[in-house]
Order: sequence, then structure tokens, then C-alpha cells
Amino acid sequence: MLERIVIDDIRPRTPTGRYPAKAVIAEPLDITAIIFKDGHDLLAARVCWRAADTKTWAEAAMSVESAGLDLWSATIAPTQLGLHEVAVEAWYDEWATIKHKLKAKLDAGQEVDVELAEAALAVERRAAETGMPQRKHLDSVAKALRDDVTTQAERYAALLGPTMDALMAGPLKPDYVTRSDTQQVWVDRTRALFASWYELFPRSYGGLRGVIERLPAIADMGFDIVYLTPIHPTGSTARKGRNNTPQAMPGDVGSVYAIGGPDGGHTDIDPALGTFDDFAALIDAAQSLGMEIALDNALQCSPDHPWVTEHPEWFHRRPDGSIAYAENPPKKYQDIYPLNFWPASDEDRQALWDACLHMFEFWVDKGVRVFRVDNPHTKPVAFWSWLIPQVQSENPDVIFLSEAFTRPAVMAKLAEIGFSQSYTYFTWRTSKFELTEYLEEIAHSRKADFMRPNFWPNTHDILSGPLRNGPPAAFKTRLVLAATLVPSYGIYSGYELMENEPMSDANEDYMNSEKYEIKHRDWDDPHSLAPFITLINTIRNRHPALQRLRNIRFHQCDNEHLLVYSKTAEDDTVLVVVNLDPSNTQEATLGLDLTELALPFDRPYEAYDELTGQSFQWIGANPYVRLDPWVQPAHILHLRTLGG
Amino acid sequence: MLERIVIDDIRPRTPTGRYPAKAVIAEPLDITAIIFKDGHDLLAARVCWRAADTKTWAEAAMSVESAGLDLWSATIAPTQLGLHEVAVEAWYDEWATIKHKLKAKLDAGQEVDVELAEAALAVERRAAETGMPQRKHLDSVAKALRDDVTTQAERYAALLGPTMDALMAGPLKPDYVTRSDTQQVWVDRTRALFASWYELFPRSYGGLRGVIERLPAIADMGFDIVYLTPIHPTGSTARKGRNNTPQAMPGDVGSVYAIGGPDGGHTDIDPALGTFDDFAALIDAAQSLGMEIALDNALQCSPDHPWVTEHPEWFHRRPDGSIAYAENPPKKYQDIYPLNFWPASDEDRQALWDACLHMFEFWVDKGVRVFRVDNPHTKPVAFWSWLIPQVQSENPDVIFLSEAFTRPAVMAKLAEIGFSQSYTYFTWRTSKFELTEYLEEIAHSRKADFMRPNFWPNTHDILSGPLRNGPPAAFKTRLVLAATLVPSYGIYSGYELMENEPMSDANEDYMNSEKYEIKHRDWDDPHSLAPFITLINTIRNRHPALQRLRNIRFHQCDNEHLLVYSKTAEDDTVLVVVNLDPSNTQEATLGLDLTELALPFDRPYEAYDELTGQSFQWIGANPYVRLDPWVQPAHILHLRTLGG
Repeated sequence: MLERIVIDDIRPRTPTGRYPAKAVIAEPLDITAIIFKDGHDLLAARVCWRAADTKTWAEAAMSVESAGLDLWSATIAPTQLGLHEVAVEAWYDEWATIKHKLKAKLDAGQEVDVELAEAALAVERRAAETGMPQRKHLDSVAKALRDDVTTQAERYAALLGPTMDALMAGPLKPDYVTRSDTQQVWVDRTRALFASWYELFPRSYGGLRGVIERLPAIADMGFDIVYLTPIHPTGSTARKGRNNTPQAMPGDVGSVYAIGGPDGGHTDIDPALGTFDDFAALIDAAQSLGMEIALDNALQCSPDHPWVTEHPEWFHRRPDGSIAYAENPPKKYQDIYPLNFWPASDEDRQALWDACLHMFEFWVDKGVRVFRVDNPHTKPVAFWSWLIPQVQSENPDVIFLSEAFTRPAVMAKLAEIGFSQSYTYFTWRTSKFELTEYLEEIAHSRKADFMRPNFWPNTHDILSGPLRNGPPAAFKTRLVLAATLVPSYGIYSGYELMENEPMSDANEDYMNSEKYEIKHRDWDDPHSLAPFITLINTIRNRHPALQRLRNIRFHQCDNEHLLVYSKTAEDDTVLVVVNLDPSNTQEATLGLDLTELALPFDRPYEAYDELTGQSFQWIGANPYVRLDPWVQPAHILHLRTLGG
Repeated sequence: MLERIVIDDIRPRTPTGRYPAKAVIAEPLDITAIIFKDGHDLLAARVCWRAADTKTWAEAAMSVESAGLDLWSATIAPTQLGLHEVAVEAWYDEWATIKHKLKAKLDAGQEVDVELAEAALAVERRAAETGMPQRKHLDSVAKALRDDVTTQAERYAALLGPTMDALMAGPLKPDYVTRSDTQQVWVDRTRALFASWYELFPRSYGGLRGVIERLPAIADMGFDIVYLTPIHPTGSTARKGRNNTPQAMPGDVGSVYAIGGPDGGHTDIDPALGTFDDFAALIDAAQSLGMEIALDNALQCSPDHPWVTEHPEWFHRRPDGSIAYAENPPKKYQDIYPLNFWPASDEDRQALWDACLHMFEFWVDKGVRVFRVDNPHTKPVAFWSWLIPQVQSENPDVIFLSEAFTRPAVMAKLAEIGFSQSYTYFTWRTSKFELTEYLEEIAHSRKADFMRPNFWPNTHDILSGPLRNGPPAAFKTRLVLAATLVPSYGIYSGYELMENEPMSDANEDYMNSEKYEIKHRDWDDPHSLAPFITLINTIRNRHPALQRLRNIRFHQCDNEHLLVYSKTAEDDTVLVVVNLDPSNTQEATLGLDLTELALPFDRPYEAYDELTGQSFQWIGANPYVRLDPWVQPAHILHLRTLGG
């Protein structure tokens, strides 16, 4: 096909283009493309888009975003969940070209008889395809353009009427329109982009009923998603003791990730935690509080899992006939049997994959719409790229969070092939340079087209950075960063109590990790960060600017310990200044990009601190700030131009 | 297809992947890919490649270039010109995985009976597919691995024999191999990457015979390609006068780009310049001097071109019936009729495109293998993407240079769809920051996969930057930069005489531009830069490092007027220090990256200045340099570790 116009690099797009890019239903979706043709003719372009299960294409006119880069854009707003198709069309904009030529020539005092005749022809062609009463207007304009009694300037004026551009817009039937290939975009619900997560181990709460009791307090703190570590029966064979010791002592409960035992497997609930009725009550209770429950999916089995006897062909077998436990030599995980996703026969493979799919569908039927997937990078990419669309085609509201802490290419690929969001390296990014560089990568590079970060200052097996033996202020700082740098973040319960004791310098585990024992916490501790967390989540909910990913911009500041960034969405602008030093007060003169912030250079503007309720009147780009790490670890400032 | 291994981002690749990436026959071609699978298994991978017209695939083993980035690479060396196919295969490397597990467990003092049995099984499977005498060796190793009398360490030693890795390499017949899609690479001859060009207007030399007389002097300066501005008959209608005045005076010769007249069109030679016999003699003369002739292809017509009467349907017609001359309102080019590459009927379009193709094939038959294409961006991309492969499929040695000085996306697209090389923004990049940034873009970004720069300090219609009214030193500086930053560069004749007078501040034309008049130059001018140019080209020919594009690395230096960069190819390392200030002596302490240069930190190394014949013994990363812009505008240093 010989295309007259080049249409390249339509975004959003995944790296290979073989999987849908990602959007959410609430956020305006910018479609961009490189569009040009040879010569000086002007072009017009539009985005054509539709939900994949509908017939009709919607259209949105594109405009030039950067002439020098040949970059065009349009903003669309999908109104339903699921797979969408996007294509770009472009054509020679004869009307704009004629008008441009006419103006340039008239400005230079040149003869325009021929151009006026061209304009008349164009109007006449358009009139022939236009119904009444517009056709009548076009006919009269064509007549005026051909009227050789009047001056050229008067004839030119005829085509400048306010309705003419609208009447002349769009290609005519015989016009040649170049259409791009069709690309795909998956539209998630907003929670896939913007949510506050809270992780907990149900058994530390006395089971599902205990979690239900705790839910109002979690809701009060402003969380949206309560994620439960595995609730399934666990095994007793090779059970781990406290602090990951190889031998369990009497009374030790073992890891909740050693899934499966006499009471069942991945589609069962540990009787010690409750019943399916309890689970239904939990789902309902969360919903009534405006929250939802996320389950932890760990595709592995304890040696006591029913599949071990029912489907030994789904596991790796060693030369001595035994089933292989998990290993990363010399490390051994005898309480876990990994699944073999590529058994010798394709029938066995299909049966295993179907069983895994069924597992997700089972919990979807029980009302779960959010899955935190444990270590997805230890299962085949092909498996996830098969499974996720199967689940989402029936239930496009299902969200998959990838718990892959591994190499960047692997994490990006899991995002490309379908995971809704991903854990990140945030936990290990602590300095100003590291945070700035990392945010540029995840918010401003092409990764943002398909990969959504979820920032966790801690998880149940990562106690890292300034939180290790860290001062209380570090817990405030890291919370503010996670909650305001990106729209999705989460904490593991205990964060509010500033649990900071590492097991050793050899790894990032907690001392007395909840993974291997039941924790009893004093939620009424007067030093709890709960009020601070509540405040942060309130601010997040109040400000659309904090609910977007790509809108972050960093600002200058003459102190390496202060991180300064702003986010803007529509009319809402928030400026955040965080003291990264949990031990010392830090002060600085900021260097704000006032143009970026749409603030005046010569008049005062208001900076209202959502954390303290203080209001500042600042003028210019260089306000002074001073932050005590405990009393005031950050400014979260709502910026507003003052009237006048 | 469910792939077990992810193979992504195979490079080199063009942005869309729809056109071949580019390589040259002399340069080792690095193929890279992102390759990984789930879990801890080790992988092996290879590049499969072949010339598109051959059946057999060659293979090259890939190795890990960066484990953290999952980046693998192999270097291949195509031995024929034209289209090649490249694919990547990867598979689970059972042998490496078993060895890794065994070593880790033995180091930790763990039991390895099962792993030794796995190793024995692997060796037995391999033996079954291996012929004698290797099979015998494998059988004996398997036996040793299973020998339960000896210690585990002794049994482990059996698999460490020097030939075992080679015997166990590669997938077995039943092993699952993931193969990528096939990508294309076009292999050009070396001149497409590395050449020194010299542009001249034949009519200023008295025609083709005059050019022949001048050829030995051009060859003596070390040029490879002599590019002639159009040699075709020109028109007299609306002929331009000197300095682009609208009215030619008697005796004015007009623009050589107003192609076509009573004596013919694009497949004819202006009788004033000579005959086809003269042209054949010119081709022969160039060849005997080790040079070749490039023709200028300008697809446009004077009003007197035979096509205007023979094929009026190939031109744009205005409403008054006249043929449209070239315009960019309010500018008018009445001596030029642009072609209409999209006439109303597809038959007319095909006829025009075929005529253009014939034009190229005609000159290829006359011995031309290099075309400088004038303003390709004013013709459809689709036209070039159709034409270039047609020419090159029969004659893969033909080189197309794109003279597109336009927006980056357009220039890149012309490179992607087939142009062998491109003019660049070098002419307008003069500061250290600009040059560094630009070289990073063209040499180190993905553009280098398909776009080859050709640096011109001047052309017949661009007198720019420090050359405008510039001091003689500016001509030395810009020459050194063009000739050493990238492997292809060119100058427009007159450069050696330091012609520096602009026509006005309104544009970049030369005063008394050769485009509109015949120039007589005194080649024997004692101030001529010819000896300096000769020296530069001699150095380029002597150093493989200066014949590559991607190998440039910039080094630190504490003076903004000095640009410091190195290039390395195999054993050859060249360090260039250029004084960008043509008016003042500049000095600096350099900050060399000795690791990058493979130089010792603690012993002296030699820096031999190819420009002066001076030899320095430097030690450490911080030598001092001082450059007078006229006497010594640059160091071009051959770096060598001293023995010891």
C-alpha cells in the first residue's frame, strides 16, 4: 500500500506493540503520533477509536503538539472498561493550505487570482457533498470568491466567515485518507491507577472475623484496598520455624506461603481463619466501608497440597523419583514445591494452566477483584499472557498487581503482557538523585504507557533503607514520598507502629517476621502514625493532582536533602517538599518553575499546607522552606493564584 | 504460540521494524537482544543469519553482555552485499544449570547425589545423539558420574574435562528452542559508512573534460567520492540571474537545478559540459585514481523540460490551466516545476515513478554507483521506499545520500525507508554542548541502527556558523571536526580557498553563489588549505578508529572551547582535541577516561600527534594541552601503551 502520509509511533504503545497499552477510565487519554508528508501542504488528522466489542468508531480531531517534532495529539475519554482499538487517520487539509497560501501572498502584496479560484473550487466540491442549509452558504461563498468585480481582499474576506472552517473540515468522499494500523489500549477502572493499599496477615487478627473487626479502623485511615496474605490451608511437612529456621517447634504456625494441606489448596480457606461465609461477610464489610479485599496469589504448593498426590505430573521430579522442592542453590525451601508449568505432555500443561485459571475465577466468583500475585517472574511469561486476558475478558474490572522484585526487563515484560500494576524499586531509592531519576523513568519514559508503579515503603519481607532501625521520622518521610510521588501506594501493617527491627544484616527480613509467626500489635499505641496516615490519605483523596502518574515535575532546590516536586491535574496543583533526612532539620531556597506551575512571576500566590493548615503567601520562584523531620517532615502545598 | 523464553528488542532495528536496519560489509555487526525466562535456569542463545537469497543459516553463539539488563550479544560478519535475515534462538542450557547447581552445593558442603544423577542423565541423552569417538568419551563421563564408589567430589571432577562444555553445547533434538521473528539487515559496501566527499560544479571547470583534468589534484587531497552538481541540460524560461535575481541578464547561465531544455532532460548531458563519451572517460579516470563519481539527482523540471510537453499529467495544474511552478508562499521559484507524484490516475502515477526509476537505472548503467538526492523530503516517502529497493535489488552497491535538511522525524524516516546516508545538522552545531549532544544522538541512540550521518562543514548553499566571514582557522577547525567525529564527511569545492563571504544576513547563501554563475578559482593559491586537507584524509585512511560511527566517546576537559573525544577500533585508538575557538589560543587540563581508552593508570603512554609528528609521553588521566587555532587547531593523537 502506497501511503501518502507518514503516520508513525502512535502512543500509548507497549515496546513490542503486541499487547494493549494501558489507560484508566477516569483519566483523559492522550493519543499522540508522528504525522507528516512531503512538501509544504498542511495536514489534518484524527484519532478513530472504539471499544473492541462495539462496531462504531468515535473520532477526535488531532492538533499539532509540536510542529518541529511532527507530533500530533488528541485526548479521548473511553467510557467503558476493557479492550479498545485506536487508529489514526490523516489527510491533506486543502482548505487550510489554500488559506495559508492566500494570506502569505496577500501579506506580500502578490496577485491571488489563481488561489481564489482554487478556493472557489474547493468550496464548490464541498458544497456538492453538503446538505441544506449549509450548502446554500457554501454556494454563496464560492460565488463571492469568483466575483471578479470586487477586489481580491474582499473576495478573500468571503472565506474567513466564522462557520467556514467547520463547514470545510474533514475529508471529502474522494479525498485520499491515510489510515494507520490499529493499536490496542486496555481500559482499567480507576483503582488500577489510584489506590491506597493496606497489607495484613489475617491470622494475626484471629482470622477473617478478626479482620472484619479491624476494617473500620483501616477505612478510617483512608485505605481503599485491604490485601490479605494467603488465607488457604498450609502444610506441616518441612514447616518453617520462627525467623525462617528450618525446624518448626511445637506451636509454630509456619509460612502462609506453604499453601495446601489436608484441608485443601488454593480454592479453600484455612479453617483456622474462618469459613466461606466469613469470607463473604468480609467482602461485604469491606464494600460497605468503600474498600475492597485483595487476595495474594502464590502459585506454589506445600508438600501436603492435594495437587501433589492428585497431579504429581504438575511438579518437577528428580532422578530419584522424588518431587523437587524449591531451591536457589545453595538455598533450599523444603516447605515449597514449585509447579512445573511445562510438563512433558501438552495435555498436562493445559490441565495445570486451566486449574490455575479456575483458581482465579473461583475467587472472582467469591467477590475478589484484586489479586496481588506473588513472584510472577518465577512463572512463565507465556502463562500470564494467556491467563490474565482470560480472566479480564469476562471481568474487565479485575486488577493484577505483580510482585516481581527482579531485573528491569523482566518487570517491564510482565507489565507489557498484562499485569495492571507492579511493585517497584522505590523501597531502595532513597536519595534525591535516585528518586528523581527513578520517577523520570517510570512516569515520563515510554514505560508509563503500559507499566503502573505501586510504591511500598515496606512489605512483609522487605525492611529497607532508612526504615531499618530507623527513627520515627523516617516512617513519615517514606510514607509521604510513596503517597505523593505516584498515585498507588501501600503499606504493610505495623508500619503505623514504626516497626523497625531487622533480623540481620544478611537480608531485609523483619526480626520475628510475621511470615512465620502470629503478631499481636497494640493498635492503641499513643505514638501510632495512624493519624498522620489518615491525613495523608485524606489529602490524596482531596487532590486529583495526586491521583495521576505522568504529571510529576521536579523543581530545583539548593539542598540535597530536600526533594521538591509538583503535580497538576486540571485546575489542581500540589507542590510537595520532602525532607529526606530523617535525623536533621533541613532548610533551602527553592527554585520553582513558575511557568510549569502556571503561577504569576510578579504577584503573590497562595501555598496552603494541607499537612498543617498553614497558609503562605509566596511571590516569585524562590521561597524559603525549613522542615523538621518529625514535627513537619514535608510540605504538601495546594498552590493557588490569588485573585487580582 | 506459547514461548518458553522471552526474546525481545533484537537490534539493529529500525523504529517501525518494517524496513531493514543497516550494516556495512567491513564492520563487525553486533546483534543484541533481551533474553530471559522465569526462574533460575541458565540459558544459551545464538544468532541465526543469512543473506536473503541464500538457503543456509549461519549461526553465532550469543553471550551475556549485561546480566542485569538481560542483554545478550553476538558479533557477525556478513560477507556479501544486500538484504540479510537475522533471528535469535534461545533454549534452556541444562548443562550449565546442572554445573552451576553442583558447584554451589559442593561449595556449601551439601549432598549432590541427585544432581550427579541429573548430570549423568544429561550426558547420556547427549551421547545418544553424538557420533563416535565423542560418544565414547560421553559414555565414560556418564559412567564416572554414576560411580557410587568414588567420592562426590571425584564424580563432579568427571564433568569438568576441557572438552565437555563443547560436547554438551547446543540444544538436543527434543529440546525446546524458542526462535524470534526474523528481522532484516541491509549490508552496504564500506563506502556507505566511510568516505570523503568532494562537491564541484562541472561547468566551473569547463565541463567534464575539465573535471577530468582536475581529478588528480582531488585524488591527491585524499577524497574518495567526487560529487557533481546536475550535469543535465537546463532551461532558459524564467532563468535566474546571478545571486538568485529573478531576471537573468544576457550571458547568465542560470541554476543547474532548473533541469531540462531543448537538449533533453534527466537522462541527458548538457552539451556545454560534454558528451557521454566524456562522461565515460570521467568515470574511468576517477576509477583509475581510486575514486568514484556521484551524481546529483534533483527530481524537478525547468519549464523547458521535455516532460512538460510530453507528460503534462506529471505536473500540478492550476485552476487557470497553467502548470504550477514551485512556491513556498510568498517565495516563488518560477524556473522550477515540481513533479506531481500523485497524478489523478494510478496509471499516470506508475508511469512517472517508472520514469524516475529508469532515470536512476540509466545512470547506474553509465557506471554511477552513488547518488546525492536533492531535497528528497519534497517527494513522497512512499516513492523512495518503492524506488530505492528496486535500484538496490539489482545493484546492491548503489549508495543514496539524502539531502534533507528538515525536521528530525522526516530525516529519520528517509533513513529508515532506505537512504544509505544523510546530510545532518552538523553545519549548525558549533558549541561543545551542541556537538556533544548531537553526536550522542546520531552515534549512540537507536538512530545509529539505520541512519548514517555525512558531515558537511559547507555546501554550495550553506555558508554557516564560524565560516561566515570566518577567519582561516575556522576552516581548519570545522574540517577536523567533520572528518574525525564521523566516518563520512564532505566539502564543497572552494573550501580549501576559505571562501567565506555570505550574500546577506537574510540567508545562508554565498555571495556570488556558484549555483547561478561560473566560478574561476586559483587552485595554486599559496594559502590553500589543500595540504592540510590532504593530511586529514591521510590520517583518516590510516586509522580504522576514524572509519567507524558508533565508537565515539567524549572526555572531560576544563575548557568549554576544547572538545575532546576518542575513537577505538580493534587495536587502534585515536584521541582528538579540537580548539572550537577560531580566534584565540585555548589551553586545558584534560580528564581522560583511561579505562575507556584501555590505558594504564600508573605508567606512561604515548600520544603521537598525527598532525605535527610530535610524540608525547603522558601519564595519568590529566594531560595538559594548548592549541593555537591556526598553527595547531587540534591534536589528532594516536594513543599507544608503551612496552613494559
